[in-house]
This record gives sequence, C-alpha cells and structure tokens, in this order.
Amino acid sequence: MHLLSRLFYPRSIAIVGASSSPTKIGAVPVSLLAQHGYGGKLYPINPAAATVQGMPAYESLTAVKAPVDLAIVSVPAARVLPVLHEALELGTKNFVLFSSGFAEAGEAGRLQQQQLADLALDHGANILGPNCLGYMNIRERVYATFCTGPAGGLVLPGNVAIVSQSGAFAGYAYTLARERGLGLSHWITTGNQCSIDVADCIAWLAGDPQTRVIMVYMEGCTDGEKLKNALAKAYAAGKPVMACKVGRTASGAQAAASHTAAMAGDDAVYSALFKQYGVIRAYTVEEFFNLGYAFSVADALPSNRDVGLLTMSGGVGALMADDAQIAGLTMSPLPEAARQSILRRVPFAGVNNPVDITGQATSEMDLLSYTARLMLDEGRYGSLVVFVGAVAASPALWPHIREFVRDIRSAYPDTPLVLSCAIAPANKRDLESLGCLVFSDPSTAIHMVRALCSRRDVRPPRGLPGKTAIGAVAFPQRLGEAASFALLETAGIPTVCATVCANPGEAVAAARRAGYPVAMKIASADIVHKSDVGGVRLAIADDASVESAFSEIVAAVAANAPASTLDGVLVAPMVQGGVECILGAHIDPVFGPVVMFGLGGVFVEVLKDVSFRLAPIDEDEARSMVAEIRGAALLAGARGAAPSDIQALCRAIAALSEFASANREGLSSIDVNPLAVLPQGSGCIALDAVIVPRAEGGAHQVENIS
Amino acid sequence: MHLLSRLFYPRSIAIVGASSSPTKIGAVPVSLLAQHGYGGKLYPINPAAATVQGMPAYESLTAVKAPVDLAIVSVPAARVLPVLHEALELGTKNFVLFSSGFAEAGEAGRLQQQQLADLALDHGANILGPNCLGYMNIRERVYATFCTGPAGGLVLPGNVAIVSQSGAFAGYAYTLARERGLGLSHWITTGNQCSIDVADCIAWLAGDPQTRVIMVYMEGCTDGEKLKNALAKAYAAGKPVMACKVGRTASGAQAAASHTAAMAGDDAVYSALFKQYGVIRAYTVEEFFNLGYAFSVADALPSNRDVGLLTMSGGVGALMADDAQIAGLTMSPLPEAARQSILRRVPFAGVNNPVDITGQATSEMDLLSYTARLMLDEGRYGSLVVFVGAVAASPALWPHIREFVRDIRSAYPDTPLVLSCAIAPANKRDLESLGCLVFSDPSTAIHMVRALCSRRDVRPPRGLPGKTAIGAVAFPQRLGEAASFALLETAGIPTVCATVCANPGEAVAAARRAGYPVAMKIASADIVHKSDVGGVRLAIADDASVESAFSEIVAAVAANAPASTLDGVLVAPMVQGGVECILGAHIDPVFGPVVMFGLGGVFVEVLKDVSFRLAPIDEDEARSMVAEIRGAALLAGARGAAPSDIQALCRAIAALSEFASANREGLSSIDVNPLAVLPQGSGCIALDAVIVPRAEGGAHQVENIS
Repeated sequence: MHLLSRLFYPRSIAIVGASSSPTKIGAVPVSLLAQHGYGGKLYPINPAAATVQGMPAYESLTAVKAPVDLAIVSVPAARVLPVLHEALELGTKNFVLFSSGFAEAGEAGRLQQQQLADLALDHGANILGPNCLGYMNIRERVYATFCTGPAGGLVLPGNVAIVSQSGAFAGYAYTLARERGLGLSHWITTGNQCSIDVADCIAWLAGDPQTRVIMVYMEGCTDGEKLKNALAKAYAAGKPVMACKVGRTASGAQAAASHTAAMAGDDAVYSALFKQYGVIRAYTVEEFFNLGYAFSVADALPSNRDVGLLTMSGGVGALMADDAQIAGLTMSPLPEAARQSILRRVPFAGVNNPVDITGQATSEMDLLSYTARLMLDEGRYGSLVVFVGAVAASPALWPHIREFVRDIRSAYPDTPLVLSCAIAPANKRDLESLGCLVFSDPSTAIHMVRALCSRRDVRPPRGLPGKTAIGAVAFPQRLGEAASFALLETAGIPTVCATVCANPGEAVAAARRAGYPVAMKIASADIVHKSDVGGVRLAIADDASVESAFSEIVAAVAANAPASTLDGVLVAPMVQGGVECILGAHIDPVFGPVVMFGLGGVFVEVLKDVSFRLAPIDEDEARSMVAEIRGAALLAGARGAAPSDIQALCRAIAALSEFASANREGLSSIDVNPLAVLPQGSGCIALDAVIVPRAEGGAHQVENIS
Repeated sequence: MHLLSRLFYPRSIAIVGASSSPTKIGAVPVSLLAQHGYGGKLYPINPAAATVQGMPAYESLTAVKAPVDLAIVSVPAARVLPVLHEALELGTKNFVLFSSGFAEAGEAGRLQQQQLADLALDHGANILGPNCLGYMNIRERVYATFCTGPAGGLVLPGNVAIVSQSGAFAGYAYTLARERGLGLSHWITTGNQCSIDVADCIAWLAGDPQTRVIMVYMEGCTDGEKLKNALAKAYAAGKPVMACKVGRTASGAQAAASHTAAMAGDDAVYSALFKQYGVIRAYTVEEFFNLGYAFSVADALPSNRDVGLLTMSGGVGALMADDAQIAGLTMSPLPEAARQSILRRVPFAGVNNPVDITGQATSEMDLLSYTARLMLDEGRYGSLVVFVGAVAASPALWPHIREFVRDIRSAYPDTPLVLSCAIAPANKRDLESLGCLVFSDPSTAIHMVRALCSRRDVRPPRGLPGKTAIGAVAFPQRLGEAASFALLETAGIPTVCATVCANPGEAVAAARRAGYPVAMKIASADIVHKSDVGGVRLAIADDASVESAFSEIVAAVAANAPASTLDGVLVAPMVQGGVECILGAHIDPVFGPVVMFGLGGVFVEVLKDVSFRLAPIDEDEARSMVAEIRGAALLAGARGAAPSDIQALCRAIAALSEFASANREGLSSIDVNPLAVLPQGSGCIALDAVIVPRAEGGAHQVENIS
C-alpha cells in the first residue's frame, strides 16, 4: 500500500481542537464526519469539554489510548508543534493542519514551518498543510476539512480527483462540481505544502483505484523532478491530468507570489512540462471543469482527428466547422454513397460534413440514428459531434434523443459521441451514464473533441535513449568564441569555420583560407549583442576591406563597449542563403535544463515566436517544437523558396538539449544565434554562439528570452 | 411610425393554413397566440374547417371582411403567391412566410422567390421569410412563429432583441435565453430574406423603445450599404449590437453557403465592418449570450480601462490578473493609504491589485464593502470585479452578499460591478435587478469587462470629412509603372522618383540623375511579382553595372515571362533604411472599398499579419489598423532602431482609403508593396505599386491577400 493511503483512507481520526461551537473551524470536520456517516473511529480532542457535538471528548491525544491513523489539527500556530510531537510519540503518522500563521505570515512563520517539515522527514510522517482546508474522500465519507461547501449539499461520488494548492479555489471548485454534476473521488488542498505537495498527491492518485481523472490547481512548484515523476506515473496509469496553473503573465505571477510562499516559475517552462507529460492545460475555470467533465464521462478516445459533424441547424454546423478547423481537426467529406442515401431521405440535406439533416429530423426522429450510422460506417470519423439544439429539451422528442444516443453508443462503443443541446439536468445525467458528452455550447463540444484527440496523441514522457548521451564537460569561467564553437562541435552542432585573429594580417590570411566573401565579428566573451556595438561586418570581399574592417571593428567596440576584454576579431566564410534561427538552452531553477527554438531576426525579437521543452528531447520532439511556432511555414519554403533542412535542425536541437542536460551542473545558458538552416540536404550551421557557464557557487544567470 | 412597426406590432393577425392538428406547423401560432393572451384580433384561415382549435375559422382572407395587419402564411410553396395577391388586394401589407421550397431548393425556387421579392417591392409590403420560423414580440405576446421553444416554457420579457437568419439557431437561442434568464423584447428570424433582411430588423430595432440590446446571428449579407446604415442607426440610438457571424474559415463558409442562398463574404471584411460600427463579435454561442447578458444587465459603461480586482481567493485573483492583462486592461496598484487601511483590518491581505481579503471575509462580511469602497474611492477604477467563490451559495452568508451589492451599486451607480461566484438562480436575478453582472467563471467576468470597455471606446461610425475628399480618376485599361506612380501621387501617397528607361543609355542617365546606388526593376503591367521572374536588381553602384543590369533584366524576363508586354526598365534611387510595409485596397463586392495594411516580407507572406478597414477612414482609424497587427512593435523601433514615421504611414493609409473610395467604380485593386516607412520625421515612400482597374463590364478582380 502506498504511504499516503493511510492519510487518505484513515480507519480512525482524532480532531485536535474539536469544538461544539458552529462558528469554530474545529467544529466543521466533527459535524461533517458524524453527519455523513464516516465509517471509522472518531476522537474529538478538547481539554475544556466533556463532550463535543454530543460525542465524548478526550483531553488529549494521549487520553485516546487507541491507534489514531489521522490527526486533524485545528489549534493556534504556536500549539501545533507540541501536538505533533505528542502524536508522533503515540505512533500517529498522518496529519491535516488547518492552522495558519506559518510561511504565509513572514519570516518567523517560515522558520516554524521548516520545523514541521523537518519533523515530517525525521519521522516519516505525512503532513497536509499547514494553512490548508484539508481533504475529503468522497466515497468513504472522510471529511477532514473545514470547507463550507458540503454544508450547501454534497457532490456526487465519481472518478474525478481535485487537488488544489489554494483552499479558497478548492472550496469554489467543490461547489461548481456539485452544480455541474461532476462526480468526485477525492478533494485535496495542500496549502503551504511543508511535507506533502501537489506532486505527492498526483503520484498517489495515479495508483488510487477510485480515481480516473486528476484535476490540478497549482500556483507554483519548488521540486521539478518530483512533479515530473508524479506526472509520468499518472501517464503510465492512463489517467489524464488537467492543470489550471495561475501566473501566466507578470501580473498573475505577482499576485500568485504574494498569495503563497511558492515561486511561480517561468510560465513557458510550465507549458513545456505540461506538453511533454500529456497534461492538458486549462486557462479558465470553465475550461478546467469542461475538461474534467469530458475525461470523466468519455469512455473512449477518438481513433483519429477526423471529426464527423451532424447537425439539425446549418448555421450551427458552419459554426462548428469554423471551430473544428481552427482547432486543427479535419472534417473529411462523407463518401458519395452515404451522401446519396441521406439525400434520398432528406432532399435538401447538406451532405458534405457537416451533415445537415435540417428541421426535418423533428418529424422523422429516426433520421438521427440513420445518418449517424451512415457517417460512422462509411466516413470512419474518430468522433461524432451532434447538434440537436432545443430538440432534447422538448418533452415530446426527448425519448427519441435518448434512444438515438443509446443506439449509437452501443453500436460504436469506441467512438466518442458528443451532443450539443439544451437539456434537463436529469436527462443530461442519463446520457452521460451512457458515456455521451453533453454541452450546451457547440464550440465547447468541438474544443473538447480536440482535447480528447490531443490526449490520444501524447507520446509517453521519457528520458533520452542512452546511446546518444554525452558526458559533462569542464567549463572555464570565461568562454571565448573559439572555445564556444569547439564546445558546440563537441555537442554535435555544426559550426562555421571561424578563426580568431589578433591583427589585420592574421585576418587577411584567415579570410583567404575561408574564401571570399567573409564575415567579421568582434570576439569577446563580454559582448552578447555584437552588432549593437558596431562589432559586425558582413560580405567583405577583398584583402583591403578585411584590413580596414578589422581596424573599424576594434575602434567601434573600444568606443561603445570600453570595459570589454577583447579576444580579437573572428573571421569566417559568409554562409549564403538559409533561414536564420535561434537555439537556446538554460537551466531552470525548478525544472532543470530547458531548450528553446525560434526563428531569428524579427520573429524572435518582435514576435517572441519561440517554443520551449524540458531537456533532453529527441528529434521527434524537436520536430514538434519547430512545427509549433507561428513562422514555421518559413522553413517549409515560403513563396517558392527551397524547403529548409528541418531534419538537420531537429538534430541540432536534440543535440543541444542533450548537451544542456549533461551539463546542468556547469552551465547557465547557451544561445546559438544565428543558426543558419540551409536548404534540405545541406544541413545547418551555427554562425555565432554565447555560452554562459554557471557562476561559481552563485545562482544561475538565467537569461530570459521569452 | 416606422414601416415595420405594423409587422411587429400587429393589431390583427390572420393565419393562412391554420390547423387544429398539433403536428401541423400551421397549428402552432394559433395555439401560442390564443394561449398566451395576444391582445389583438385573430383570424384562422382554413377552407376545410369550420373551427380551428375552438375558434371560428374563415374560408379565405377575403371572408374575414376586416382589416388584417399581418398575415402568417403556412401553405405549400405553390400556393403562397395566390395568397399574397389576395391579401395585398385586401390591403394587408405585412407577411410572415413559413413556407419553404424557395431559393434554398434550387433554381425554380429561386425564381419563385424573386416573384415574392418583386411583389413586396411593387406593393410596399413587408415579407419576413420565406422559409423562416417567424417572429415573437415577447411583451405584446405576438407569437407569429412555429418555434417549439415556447412550448417548453416562456422566456422572461426583457430588453434584448434576437435577430437570426437561421430558424434552427433562433430556436436554440430561445431555449438558451430561457435557461439563462435572459429577458427578451423581440425574437425574429429572417429565413431566405426575400424582402426583409437582418439589416432591416436592426434598423427597426434601433428605434424600438422595448429594445436596448440587439443580438444578431448572420450567415452572410448581400447589401453592404443597408447593413452599414442599420448599424450606424443602432450606434446612434446607443444600442449595443453583438454579432455571431458564421463562415470564419473556408470550412465554415462552405457549410454556410450550402445552408442558405446568401454568400458568406470575406470574413476579414466583416471583422472590419464590425470594428468600425462598434459591433461586438462573438465567436461562440456561449460568448454571444454572455455579451447579450452583460449589456442587458449593465446600466453603465466603465469610465476607464483600469479594473479593480477584489478577491477572497489569492489564486483566483492571480488568474483574473492574467486574464485582465491578456485582455489589455490595466490594473493600477491601490494607493498606499488605502493599502494601509485594508492591512489594519486584514494583516495578511494582498493589497496591490488584485486586493485579496482572504477567507477572513467570511467571518467579517463587512470587509467586502469596506474594501470595495476604498478601492473605488481611492483607486478610481473604471469597473470592479469581485470574486466571492462559494460564499454567495451559502444560505448563511448570502444576505451579506446582497447587502454588499446593494451598497456598492447605490454608492457608485456609474461603475460596473461584476461578481464571480456560485449562486442560486433566484438570488442571481436579485443581483441583476441591481445592475450587477454575475458570472460563475471569473475569466468570463474579465472578458465581459473588456467588452464593456471596448464599447465605450468605439468612435462613432462616419464617413470621411468632406474637405479631403478627392474625385474619381479615369483609368486606362493597362496601367504601366509610370502611370501607377502618378496615380499614387495624385492620391497623396509619396512615391520614389522612378524613371522608365527604354535602353541602357537612358538607364545610365536616369541613374546619374537619381544618384548611386540605384534600384532597377522591369516595368510591365503584366508582371506582379517582379523578383520571381528575375526582374529586380538592387544596390547598383556604377554606370557599367547599370548597363549590364539592364540587359540581364530584359533577358531574364524574356526567358521567364515571355508573354508579357514590357514597358522598359525602371530606375530609381535606393531608399536606405526604413521598415517595409504593404498597403492595399480592393473593392469588396458586398461592402465596397476596403483598405489593408501589413508589414512587408515574412510578416505578410508567412504570418498573414494584416489589418483591414472599410474605406474611407481617417488617420486616427489608420492608427488603430497599424496598432492592431502583431508586428506593430517593429514600427515603434525594435532593439534600438529609430521609431518609424507612423504619422506619415497613417496619412498614406488614409489617403489610399480615400482614393479607393472615390474610385470604387473604376478600380479593382491596388497593392503598394513595398511602402518604405522611414524614421520619424522622414515620411514614407512607395517603392512599387500595382493598380488593377476594373475589367470593363466584368466582375471585380479582387485579389484576396488575407
């Protein structure tokens, strides 16, 4: 049994700070546990009362004289540590700490919380909190919480677990789940996370048989490796995870940081993490619940991204077609024979896809099944979305809708069926029990089909195959151009044949060797943006121009960046043609090595059109990074240009990711800018690079490009 | 009284094809009108029955022998025309035609529909339909419809009118409005629009005293001028219009076209129309109803884009801050004195903005009003969004929420107040009656604040001031470079000083006049993409190079585009620096002259990063076009570059829009590509242009760039 199972499935619970006064926090779990029929033993602890809410109360944990699987602690911060010591001595290993006044309350609180963390570590104990709203195990009726949600009515038991750092958000989520009829298995808040964090809960839920879908609300993370492992576990268990992570923008991150002690990391890195681990990210509460609902109800994933659209309104059909195209789904036209079959029944039908059987269907309700079967048999769509509008809300027509759904679900159990309609809540639940998704908004229906498809397409999260792994290298404190190029070559990234020259004479000799025309750039580990200081000359055609360019570059840099140490001037052949890209890597303080790709020039500088992944990645994943940027068409060959060597580019990205991964200890960041990607078959070549080693003993100097 | 008022407010109604059989379409309006207490006279017409649904029936319209304001016609297509003739002879001017089998059913139907249209025109009659679901006047209980929605329950009377081309969509919308508690004034479907179209309805609703908000669902439009006028009327009446227009993508447009006889025009042009006329566009049904709801309930618009966020959950506060930033709203921090006041009450509060008063508020509910008043008094936010999560759903706390809303709404009647929470439907209506918007999803709350702000910022739709108007010019059938440049100069767009040269000698002379280096390009009205055929040479430095370039260009073009008529070779000074842009104009078949702006090169070719407006526009509107593209930062001066002369650019865009507008009859399209926008103060200059006159008697050759 997993270590946390006793925390979340306790056979006995003590409530320290139990109260009879309904306004006290310590009263809530007592009444919820008693009222809703928790099956284990219950020990209210209150030294000042003989009974609590009609139950005999105990003076202390010691007075219980029976095993306590879980202690809920609802006492002032100053009294928490003594209570924990007492409990641990008695053998209790699991705690829910409601008490606030720890890390969220300043330095003194932070120190106190550290003591809690140490205690948990020393004793192998599990602490949920402090400053949390506790948890609920819905089926087992364990209400280790002071959430007021259940007082307004209970949620249905179901297969969705909600894990939230924020108690207030979780309280709201409980109410929304109840209102929307979303069935829950567990509801867990982690608060200040002194011992158990969101990742621990995900990892445990991955193995919990009652849970099939995991909804995660998070504000930040301090242990990236643990989170990665937890998500990999959920993936391996086949359980979809959806995440609502706040702090996308500077404003949001600031608000999140002032709320919790957690650091809201670079949002692009979280997005990369989610992509690579198959986590579906929700950007609104609405979307979060739609996703949880979709994965909870659907019992199959689409076998392909081709969606069949069946509608009783041509206009809504067009609207769904818009959405599907924008969502990247395909809508193959229905084969001719099937079209003719439909037209024989409804001469005015639209029979391409969307298939529009018009209002005619209200007088011949068997048309729905008839058409849907034709579409699935002959169109072989991976999913079917059916818009019936107000028809399902009509008492006279509803039985036909139910019959239709029953028919299609039983005939095509492996094909997700999504209905968009207005419908009475009880009838909606009826359809859901058949595995049919129901949304009032047709666009949401399409959006959720996309989410189901994306889930199907996720590749298993994994490290890099061992064979290509490279070792760590030793970095000097300052990396000149020559050394940087040599390191890139070691990493497996082709570099331009550049020579660092100390004087005009050496430069002329180098230029002759390279062949004219040449490029010349200042060589200095101190200068990142060389052209900004007059340190770059391109397309130099002859010896005399090389000599004068040498002097001019040195003079310009001396004037514009007088403090820089110069290593000389770099002479390299001009690389003609190709698309300029930028590759980067840096070591994220939470998630470790991260690799970045973008198109060079205006794309990266004006549009911030870049993609990120946690390193290492393989070439397939690199390909998805490349495909993801808005300017990707430029590499495919825009307006008659030859397609670029995307394979070589992906090899370089993967190589850089390996290098960054192998050197996560010694490295701070690498920018390869530009990397010229030549036409297909001609490879790619790094024209310049800046490698920043990790400062000795200091923090990572992370250059934030995004 | 407006002409349509008698159609939508009839004192007497005849139903031709009235039936007692509940499965017949002609039965529905009879029963709805009778059952829901329509106050006027009702005449069921059925030659085969003495009574219909218990009412005396008439053999024909002639047999009624009393004035009939409105005839509802529910007979087979073939019988519609005779019925109309009879009615018109009797003086009836208003018709609702349920009958289908017209333009939607092929060529014969199209001809029959044309007869209806002619009849309406000849007799000054109003026909709604054919092939429509009719209309409802909710307050007056006029149910001139066979929509089944009312059978499931009536919508509340309210101030929102829904106009829809699609009957099926409208039926769904009726049900959604009922489910969401959105109060309606009118519900109108226009079907095949043989006489009355969506624009007519908008224009009429602009003057209808029961209507404050107009929700429009449309699939296409054939009379752009009428739609513009209708929207201008709604704007002038201060009534917000929201539009759900399908056919955004190729798929959607195809589906819409197969559904109706209307052409789904170029979507970018619709977007421009909506922007310029203050129409708020909805992309989903959900958003459509959220917008209708927001403008229906809100009784004030925000006085600025600065939003105050008040939350009881830090996490949701961060989420809303993310949304607000992405939505382009600002969140000024709360002034220091107000912060201190809040911190005195809640030491752990977040007091920047979002202001997070934490769960503490549940035990001190006056904190909500206290904080909100501080925020509005001292932060001067244009709107206030308050997240209270599950608190409003708590029976114990609900009275405090109501008190809070009542207090803030009465103290700050000009400031929109938006609540995000879970809440019982009756309580929600209670808050709405106070003008407070309520959304379950906090992101929707932010999105709607943005919509309210945008509405405030719309400039009145208008033509161009007369003083700058220019006259139409006469276009030759083929426009050479020299003529095109001359036309641009006439239009007020500066052009490069280019000379068309017939031989190398002329070219050398022209180059010396222009000053080296020069650019040389083939001059031919037949060649649009000159560089693709080897017709462009840049940065030519001396006489000899000019001579050889001349021969090479002519040879390359002769080889690559042998069918082209050549006018010579253009010689122009190289324009150094500047940002390359593209300006365009074309004549849209529905909406007339349209102007386009984009950044040149990869921006327009790879990213399709362009903006459109209906012409003519002034420089202010041009400025908003420029600001709207993703690459706008490039013109502001990216990475140390000098800011571009945006004012000159805007002047050129406005000038082009005037020129296109003045020449809508003679012109097909203009591309100015590139237009070099020089650093601030140095103006902009057209380096090349292609002007395509309208083909004699032919259709517009519209070049679709978007």
